Amino acid sequence: MADDVLFEFLHMEMVSHIYKEQASRGEMDKDRATCVSALEGMGFRVGQGLIERFTKDSPSFKDDLDIMKFICKDFWINVFRKQIDNLRTNHQGTYVLQDNKFSLLTQLSSGKQYLEEAPKYLAYSCGLVRGALSNLGMDCVVTAEVSPMPSCKFQVVIQKI
Amino acid sequence: MADDVLFEFLHMEMVSHIYKEQASRGEMDKDRATCVSALEGMGFRVGQGLIERFTKDSPSFKDDLDIMKFICKDFWINVFRKQIDNLRTNHQGTYVLQDNKFSLLTQLSSGKQYLEEAPKYLAYSCGLVRGALSNLGMDCVVTAEVSPMPSCKFQVVIQKI
Repeated sequence: MADDVLFEFLHMEMVSHIYKEQASRGEMDKDRATCVSALEGMGFRVGQGLIERFTKDSPSFKDDLDIMKFICKDFWINVFRKQIDNLRTNHQGTYVLQDNKFSLLTQLSSGKQYLEEAPKYLAYSCGLVRGALSNLGMDCVVTAEVSPMPSCKFQVVIQKI
Repeated sequence: MADDVLFEFLHMEMVSHIYKEQASRGEMDKDRATCVSALEGMGFRVGQGLIERFTKDSPSFKDDLDIMKFICKDFWINVFRKQIDNLRTNHQGTYVLQDNKFSLLTQLSSGKQYLEEAPKYLAYSCGLVRGALSNLGMDCVVTAEVSPMPSCKFQVVIQKI
């Protein structure tokens, strides 16, 4: 229990710190993009570190879908304490991961008043996923959307070279 | 295992982000104090939240020493996965908590080259302790020092009103 809370509280503080400090610089225009990018970058590096630990004893993966299944199950359980509820793919490099009760959103009220605020709490996690996939050799763009709280969807698009 | 790493990695990233962004503002003089204070503040708020969870089912404490023992044992185990190794007090409101293998320092090399860097990794934890004690009604100043890595000492001085 403690460790979950420890991570969740620290995550909340970090989001709030990054948005506050940006506001204090008075660059309102660049605000949102810069904050999202700072959080995403931190997530990216942590995701790279985590996946190394998590896959230390795993057999190698046979394809991209196999990797995505690992992310949806083992990775998600380790980080967010539950599996992804639904994984869809168009079999052309796009994956949609749906979490019906995303742990970093459950601390927010599920009323509509926070719907606008919610995306800031997803940037770090998008980075986590992108970092993990990157270390497994998949270069991706990861975005997320909330609807309705506390559920959310992560979209992963593999970048073809 | 995962959750520990999750917290530790995020903590490392947060420290590095705060120092980097400060450096980018070019205010080298204020640097150190501002960063320490930002990290300490985040720790303070998280400490307040954590202690509420941890003491939910605890009996009330009979005195300050009783509270400090709780911090050294239950709180420390929950947050840092081990107890404080040594608690000393002058019985006049000063406590010294020694951790011989502090989890947020074990990722750094224990050579002398990081000794100067180490204090930045203690600011957040000083805040955690101060926040926890504050919510239990103890107004304190908490400082920390490293010597030698990865052991460290937290000094808690109760502020008399």
